Amino acid sequence: MKKQIAILGSTGSIGTQALEVIEEHSDLYEVYCLTANNRVRELAEQARRFNPAAVVIANEAHYEELKSLLADCPDINVYAGRQAIDDIVTAGPIDMVLTAMVGFAGLSPTISAIKAHKKICLANKETLVVAGELICRLAAENHSPILPVDSEHSAIFQSIVGEGDNEIEKILLTASGGPFRTLSKEQLAKVTKADALHHPTWEMGAKITIDSASMMNKGFEVIEAKWLFGVDVDKIQVLVHPQSIVHSAVQLVDGAVKAQLGVPDMRLPIQYAFSYPDRLHLNGDRLNLFEHPLEFFEPDMEKFRCLALAYEAMRKGGNMPCILNAANEIVNRGFLDDKCGFLDMPRIIEETMARVAFDANPSYDTYIATDAEARRVATELMGA
Amino acid sequence: MKKQIAILGSTGSIGTQALEVIEEHSDLYEVYCLTANNRVRELAEQARRFNPAAVVIANEAHYEELKSLLADCPDINVYAGRQAIDDIVTAGPIDMVLTAMVGFAGLSPTISAIKAHKKICLANKETLVVAGELICRLAAENHSPILPVDSEHSAIFQSIVGEGDNEIEKILLTASGGPFRTLSKEQLAKVTKADALHHPTWEMGAKITIDSASMMNKGFEVIEAKWLFGVDVDKIQVLVHPQSIVHSAVQLVDGAVKAQLGVPDMRLPIQYAFSYPDRLHLNGDRLNLFEHPLEFFEPDMEKFRCLALAYEAMRKGGNMPCILNAANEIVNRGFLDDKCGFLDMPRIIEETMARVAFDANPSYDTYIATDAEARRVATELMGA
Repeated sequence: MKKQIAILGSTGSIGTQALEVIEEHSDLYEVYCLTANNRVRELAEQARRFNPAAVVIANEAHYEELKSLLADCPDINVYAGRQAIDDIVTAGPIDMVLTAMVGFAGLSPTISAIKAHKKICLANKETLVVAGELICRLAAENHSPILPVDSEHSAIFQSIVGEGDNEIEKILLTASGGPFRTLSKEQLAKVTKADALHHPTWEMGAKITIDSASMMNKGFEVIEAKWLFGVDVDKIQVLVHPQSIVHSAVQLVDGAVKAQLGVPDMRLPIQYAFSYPDRLHLNGDRLNLFEHPLEFFEPDMEKFRCLALAYEAMRKGGNMPCILNAANEIVNRGFLDDKCGFLDMPRIIEETMARVAFDANPSYDTYIATDAEARRVATELMGA
Repeated sequence: MKKQIAILGSTGSIGTQALEVIEEHSDLYEVYCLTANNRVRELAEQARRFNPAAVVIANEAHYEELKSLLADCPDINVYAGRQAIDDIVTAGPIDMVLTAMVGFAGLSPTISAIKAHKKICLANKETLVVAGELICRLAAENHSPILPVDSEHSAIFQSIVGEGDNEIEKILLTASGGPFRTLSKEQLAKVTKADALHHPTWEMGAKITIDSASMMNKGFEVIEAKWLFGVDVDKIQVLVHPQSIVHSAVQLVDGAVKAQLGVPDMRLPIQYAFSYPDRLHLNGDRLNLFEHPLEFFEPDMEKFRCLALAYEAMRKGGNMPCILNAANEIVNRGFLDDKCGFLDMPRIIEETMARVAFDANPSYDTYIATDAEARRVATELMGA
């Protein structure tokens, strides 16, 4: 029986690469449903190619257009709206849900999928940043495995396969350092969005590319790793590794460090999340270690203040990472829209973290309220 | 119940470090027997400290001395001779046998231990070089697991833990390159044994240190890896990695490369062979990736001809690796005794490989005869 996969955010970078993997292994996998936010024409095109049982466009304004684009495909059910995504992921035939949408919007459908006992292939890191404790508890209660799709977390996951209960002494989370690694603080103040959108090693969507440039993305990954692997954030060390060859590593209780390396290719972690514990052949370049020496540097948390803020938010716990994430979504968008400068981002996030009410034991509703309030505060601060 | 361990070659570098591991974890492990070749006083001292059921000195000339050194230890049985080692490893209480003696002498007791269904912690690589096919067949028939203790093979083993039947596409076997990595062929011709005995990263016995300088040790490790992991030698790539941090790696069918890294410390692979699949705490330095970049170079097989000869011997198969090993034992000793120069070693080995009768399907007796004949030919060539 082919595994049925739901891809949430199918028109993004992860979504399209997931479809490549599925196409390559069409003997094993089948698309059950595709969802997108706004890119209605790409979504319709994908639907024609993969013939899923359902497609959902989150922005309801595009419903009629999608419907008409697929008018001659009577087998494909067309839906619209966020609620429709929450509903569709619970469909009986679905085996795995790839959460590849961007931002806080990933939280609700991920919870629905977990409650329906689906295997989660987690590419939306904001889900764990915002509500890691809740998600992990629900996943355990519902026996819903969470497989990481981020290249770093997949590397860690691959490195501890077969290690059973062997204790993790430390996680070594690598970071390319982004396009601004070698700039001074003065230079950082002047970078433009065009500079930031040019990532040295990975081609990704705009939001995550900006997060990479500010190293907030790495901060999120620290929090994500904390939840996925049950390791205290202070045992997670970020290593700037400009070559992006060592995708991350773990140090075990005997001091052995195990790492996963490779050329940067997101199809590998996507495919491994689908096929785990098996591995399937993957066409593509193979690693050539003769090309460059592998270098590792300590991150400069003063220059890249977002990374420090993420550690602070996680140490504080409760709804603080949720505040961090919401403020970041606002300033990230603001930077892309020329409404704030590069160094305004951490300043506004920090101020938002100080202003929004802290809750040590948030419920799902608290997260929703915190997210809304933090967005309001950050927007206000950005306008000021 | 504590695991009972037999240490063959307990006074060597691996043997003494194994005893450190056992001392550190005396709640889990106990020494059942210790054996040495000639170092009778060290052996007696170890016996007093670890109180094994038996000690064996291989060189019978030292029997009386050992006996008198342990006269006041009535619980320790004292034996002498190679046959006594073959016999003692079959003793009922023994759970694991660490084969840490040097050279061809490791073959016979390893076979005895396998036939007695013991778990083998294999540090004597010559066993697999000489008779890998026979050893692997016997180990399978007797359900006797072979756990590698060489740091490279332990790294590979650690990297494939939990990978099940996932196909290995390539093994990346790292080599420090030894003390002569950057010398020209002209300079190599003039190196002395004092130069060769100064290894840049590992402190080891004299035989293996010379083998490392000539890269014959790496050639042996290629053959050893072939047998341990069932991978064709042409899928085993040697990478010169002067920092000795990446202890080796495997490339899997999806292109993922998994590696084990760490500071050079032989206690780790020894302990892991004992404790597998569990890991125990190990006191010692932890890896600091900020110290040096990690570099990888292709080995120069023309300069380090021994490595090329090992590939050739393994491709040829049969008793050819046995000839390679025997000739190497002679020239290695000859180099230490100033009877031949550094570049005479590969020349004599190659000539020996050409002269000794090839047998594509050797039996145990063939190995014994081949070993003797190759030693005779190599000795003759060295004298010429």
